[in-house]
This record gives sequence, structure tokens and C-alpha cells, in this order.
Amino acid sequence: MTWLGEQQIADMARGAAILGSGGGGASHFGSLLAFAAVRGKGPVKLLAPYEVPDDALVIPTAMMGSPTVMDEKIPAWDTLTFALRALEGHLGRHATALMPMEVGGRNCLVAVAVAAATGLPLVDGDGFGRALPELQMLTFSTYGVPGCPFAIANERGDHAVIEALDNLALERLARAVTLQYGGVGYVAGYAMPGWRVKETAVLYTLSLAGRLGHGLRQAGTSLPHAIQALQEATANSTFGKALVLALGKVTAVERWVGDGYGRGRVTIRGPQRGSLVVHFQNEYLLAESDGQVVASVPDILVLLDAETIQPLSTEEVCYGHQVVAMAVPAPGVLRTSPALGMVGPRCFGYDADYRPAEDLNPHEEARGGEVVGLRAWS
Amino acid sequence: MTWLGEQQIADMARGAAILGSGGGGASHFGSLLAFAAVRGKGPVKLLAPYEVPDDALVIPTAMMGSPTVMDEKIPAWDTLTFALRALEGHLGRHATALMPMEVGGRNCLVAVAVAAATGLPLVDGDGFGRALPELQMLTFSTYGVPGCPFAIANERGDHAVIEALDNLALERLARAVTLQYGGVGYVAGYAMPGWRVKETAVLYTLSLAGRLGHGLRQAGTSLPHAIQALQEATANSTFGKALVLALGKVTAVERWVGDGYGRGRVTIRGPQRGSLVVHFQNEYLLAESDGQVVASVPDILVLLDAETIQPLSTEEVCYGHQVVAMAVPAPGVLRTSPALGMVGPRCFGYDADYRPAEDLNPHEEARGGEVVGLRAWS
Repeated sequence: MTWLGEQQIADMARGAAILGSGGGGASHFGSLLAFAAVRGKGPVKLLAPYEVPDDALVIPTAMMGSPTVMDEKIPAWDTLTFALRALEGHLGRHATALMPMEVGGRNCLVAVAVAAATGLPLVDGDGFGRALPELQMLTFSTYGVPGCPFAIANERGDHAVIEALDNLALERLARAVTLQYGGVGYVAGYAMPGWRVKETAVLYTLSLAGRLGHGLRQAGTSLPHAIQALQEATANSTFGKALVLALGKVTAVERWVGDGYGRGRVTIRGPQRGSLVVHFQNEYLLAESDGQVVASVPDILVLLDAETIQPLSTEEVCYGHQVVAMAVPAPGVLRTSPALGMVGPRCFGYDADYRPAEDLNPHEEARGGEVVGLRAWS
Repeated sequence: MTWLGEQQIADMARGAAILGSGGGGASHFGSLLAFAAVRGKGPVKLLAPYEVPDDALVIPTAMMGSPTVMDEKIPAWDTLTFALRALEGHLGRHATALMPMEVGGRNCLVAVAVAAATGLPLVDGDGFGRALPELQMLTFSTYGVPGCPFAIANERGDHAVIEALDNLALERLARAVTLQYGGVGYVAGYAMPGWRVKETAVLYTLSLAGRLGHGLRQAGTSLPHAIQALQEATANSTFGKALVLALGKVTAVERWVGDGYGRGRVTIRGPQRGSLVVHFQNEYLLAESDGQVVASVPDILVLLDAETIQPLSTEEVCYGHQVVAMAVPAPGVLRTSPALGMVGPRCFGYDADYRPAEDLNPHEEARGGEVVGLRAWS
């Protein structure tokens, strides 16, 4: 058990941007909410999964919809609890602990704010191990936890409790409600006993985010140190050691909108590969070089700005950025057949089977040291 | 207390088409559902409002969305109870009696089917006294009954319980859910104690529908007898005596779709007025002659086919129909300032204040006898 105060939250926010694979919403406003909640109510208790009693009632929470809309009507932190309270009322039970549905981007910070506001502990884990766009993609769903009853609220307190017969129907209805609420909703669902958390969640992701952020903070503006920090933090986690895919300059970004996703591709040119093309749909999902896939969802793709040592989101990346493209191998729970059936590259329309990033890049591990030469060929 | 068997339901269906003011959905499929439910479970008990105990829990029900979609995926009658059961579960109480939200069109038949399926009695009243398109227009809403908790289900059992802070927010969210369910949902809400029914509902509308239908059945194909039957039934009700506005031929129907409504206007030419133009948005809402409004919502407008003695819906009416246009003065509960603020002509975008049809047509009452000459000038 550890406690999350402001420094831990700031580190977690920075690490969550890494785990967001370019998506999940910028963490700035999420950090403001979490800071405000912790200042108001004190630090949040972070429970390791083994500390959660098997019969505990764990309720995952999140914001759902457009981060941009959330930023434009940023809620008071104490209004983030409406969905949780509605779900508790429906269940006739109080939660023993909370958990973020999504570690990547801002959603772990939303969960911190809800935990602070309610005084409940937060379980160190989530349902994506990264950022992903849809509710039925949660590992909870993959491994059989029903999403319903599922509560969704807006910032003024309108709410609805959804009972859908399957998690895809839930996603569709919750998405429609989110749109009706102006583009953003605050949700609670996939309530489960403690023993199911240990079976179905991606574990230790909040502490990993904290260690990633701490490592980047220690690295300052040193790119080699930053890469080393990311590799050390990931190597000592349920994820695999982060791999450097390419160093180079963003020479093209194409963007379009389709099916409600911000879609596009980023082209990076550098000395090591001819070019690296990173495809995105809200998140970076697939990287290819010379027509060969070199990493794909559920492995995490990171474009680290070589100047600022900040991860670049799919909205931020643009022509001229000097970047290091990295892949973080996903943990085993995201690499099973059922998981790949929900979050593999084919689920996003790519004509490729998933192959682990470390298999696709057997010689990349040692390259961290080469990045000092980045500015020479930009 | 009376019992609704198949004959009573058939009469009610025909009368409900009159009260639908050209909307509310054709009653044919609603009748099939009600017949099937009554055959399966026996007749439905119809309670006069004074027979409802003040502390009874009365739950209004309806189908919401597109009648056309309902016809294309017509539900089994026993699946119509899902929303009611969800609401009862949320409230932790069972309903003592049911009530249709809407008497006009098919919704009184949907309520009969739910009542038969559950064995619950049905209160003789509704929340529109006609057909109207939106939930916040219900008299329950006008007179302060909260619509929430409000349950909405589809025919396979997906459902949601909505808690909105006001009834307009409820309408918007329920409409979005209905769309997500494929265009039609089955709903239960505005749960209230018996004493609130007597204050807020349009009373005795189901028995009026039954008497209207019975009168039309007795009239056979005699247009004068049919008009007389409508006038007798309405004169002996909380509504006013039906007025003949025009006899003539439909010489033009213009249609367009806007804001999700089927909109348009029907022009009727006959010997008595130069022409009568009836504007519709799903329902007939406003009739004018020579630029003067002669009747408007909430008064009911009826276009009775002079050949078949059937009311013509806004979808059915077309060039060449010989019709009698009639207005049924709305009951007092729909004519108060709060009610007109929700369902007056300005609520539908017409630049006119409401004036009672009987004031606008002081000399129309005696004209029923003239219709024998209809074919002469067609």
C-alpha cells in the first residue's frame, strides 16, 4: 500500500501519457482535477492487487467521450462521483475500492479524483493497460465480467443506469448517452468482486505509470537518460522492456476523421530505417517500415519529443518534430487469443495479425545509446 | 370498473385513431398486440380514476419512437413489460395500476397489452388526451410529476433507467436511447401515487376512445351517423362536442421532413369555405381558412374519410380523398396556461396564440346534417 499525493500524481500523469500510446486525452486537466481533489480531501490510498480482499466490491470508473469537450466544460472534482453513487444505489452496496478503467492518458487521474472525493482506495490496475476507445475492449469484458449495471452521469447530475445484454450493446448505448450529455460522460461499471480483479485486470499499471513519470523527471532533458528510464521502468513490470523503433524527424502527418475517430498516419525519417509510418485512430496503433509491420496494438507506441522529452499525442504530433519512436510490449493478459480478438490490429481494420514487438524487432534492444546522435542527422 | 375484452379493445383502437389527431401511429399492430395479450392472459380491468386509491402506485407506459420501426420488428406482447419491470426493480415497489402515457393512436393499445401481460388494472386516463410527440409535453410533466426514474427497454431486454434532472433532459436522453435501440423503445416512467393521477392526468380518455369507436361501429358507413356519433360521444366527455370545420376534397398534400418530424400541410376544398389548410407535424396541429386559424393544438383535428368513415392519419391522407374535417375541443386540463405553454401552437413553431375551437367556430355546431350533400360537389 502506498499513498498518492501531489508529486506521485504528477509523476503518474506523465507516465500515463506514455502508456496512452498517443491517446487517452492530454493529462493536464485530469491532473488539475486530481490535484484539486487531493488538496480537498487528502491523499489517495493505492492498493496492490494482492491487498484487495476477494469479496471486496471493486468499481471501475472513467470519463467517456471527448477529452476536448471535457476541457471545455471542466467539471468540479466532487461532481465526478455521480455515476459511482448511482451505481452503488442501484446495486444497494457501497464500493470497497475503485479502479480506473483506463490507465492511459487522463483516465487514471479521473479515477484518482473520484477516489479522493469518496475517500475510497484505488486498486493498482486497469482494464486496458494503455488507452483504447471502446468499452467492450476492456480486459474485464474479454474475461467475462459483465459491464452492466453501468452508470453514466454528466457534470450536473443527470444520470442513467444501463442494463444491456452484452458489452457491445452497452458500448453503443453508453456512447449515445455520452453524445446526448454534450460529448462527455462520467461512468462507473464492470463492478466486480476482488478475486475477479486479480483474474481480469491489467495489474500494477498505476504504479508503472508513476515509475515511468518519476524516471522521466529524473532524466530531465537528457534524451538518452529518458530512454533508459523508460526501458528500466518497463523492464521491471508486467510489460516488456521498451524498444526503440526509430529516431528521426516527422516528415509528414496526414489526418482524417472517420467513424468518430481521429485517424491518420505519421511518417518519420531517420538514418536507421528508410522511414517509419505510424498509423493512428485516436491512439497510435500500428507502425510499419518498408511495408513490414514493426509493432502493433496492443503493444504501446510512443513518440517521444527529442527536445522536450514529452510524449507526443496523436493530436500534437506535426511536421518537423524530432522524435524517438518506441514500442512497449504489452503484458501477457493483453496477448491471449481472447484479448487479441478484442484489441488486435484486425479489430481496428488493419490487415495484419498481431506479432509481439520484441519478436518483430529482435535487434532493437541495444540501441538506446545511439540516440545522442539524433541532432546530427535532423 | 369495466373489463376490456376483444370487442372493447377493437372499439377503443378505432376511437384512439380519432383522438390521435392524425398521429400516434396506426392502431392495427397495437390492436394485434393487445388482442394477443388478452387472449393469453384474459381481459383487462379498467379503473375509473375515482376507483384508484390515493396511495396506489400508478405507472404510465408507452412505446416511444417510430411506429413504422415497431411494425417492422413487432415485439412479442410479453416483452413489452421489460421497462415496467426495470422501473419496479429500481423503485423497489410493484405497480398497483398502469396507465397509458398517450391515448391517441396505438399507445393505449400498448398499455392494454402491458396490463394484460402483467394482470394489472389500467387507469381510465392518459397524459396527452390525444397524440403528441415529446415526453415533456405530458400533462404529468406540466403539473409537476417528475418523469424520472424512467425506464426504457428494447424487445430483447436491454434496458436503461434514466435519472434526469428535468423532463426536457429526460426527453432528449430517452430519444437518443430509442434511436440506439433501432428507432423504437418501450418505456415506463412518471410513476405517481393515485392522488396525483387525479390531479395531473387527462381523465376518462380510454372510455371515451371506446365510446367513439363503438359509435363509429354503430354508424356503419353512414357519414351523417358517424358525425353524429362523434359529436354525441365527445359532448358527453371532458372534451367538447366535435365541430365540423369543412367538408370537401383533398386537393393538395405537401410533405417534408424536418427535425425528425414528418411535416406538411393538407389543402381541402369544398363548398362551405374557400379552402381549409391543415398543418401537421406527425399530428394535425393547426387548421386555417383564408389565413385565419380555425382550430389548433391542443384541440384535436380529425380528417374523416367520407367513403370509409375511417380517420385518415397524416401518413395516409393524399390527393383526392373526400373528407370531413372536424375539431374536438380539448379538455380543460390541456387549456390552462401551463398546459398551453407546453402544447400550445407556439410550442410547434406556429405564430398563433391558442384560441378554443368552439370560440373560433361559433356557428359550426349545427352543420352535421349537411354532409349528405358531400358527393354532389366532389
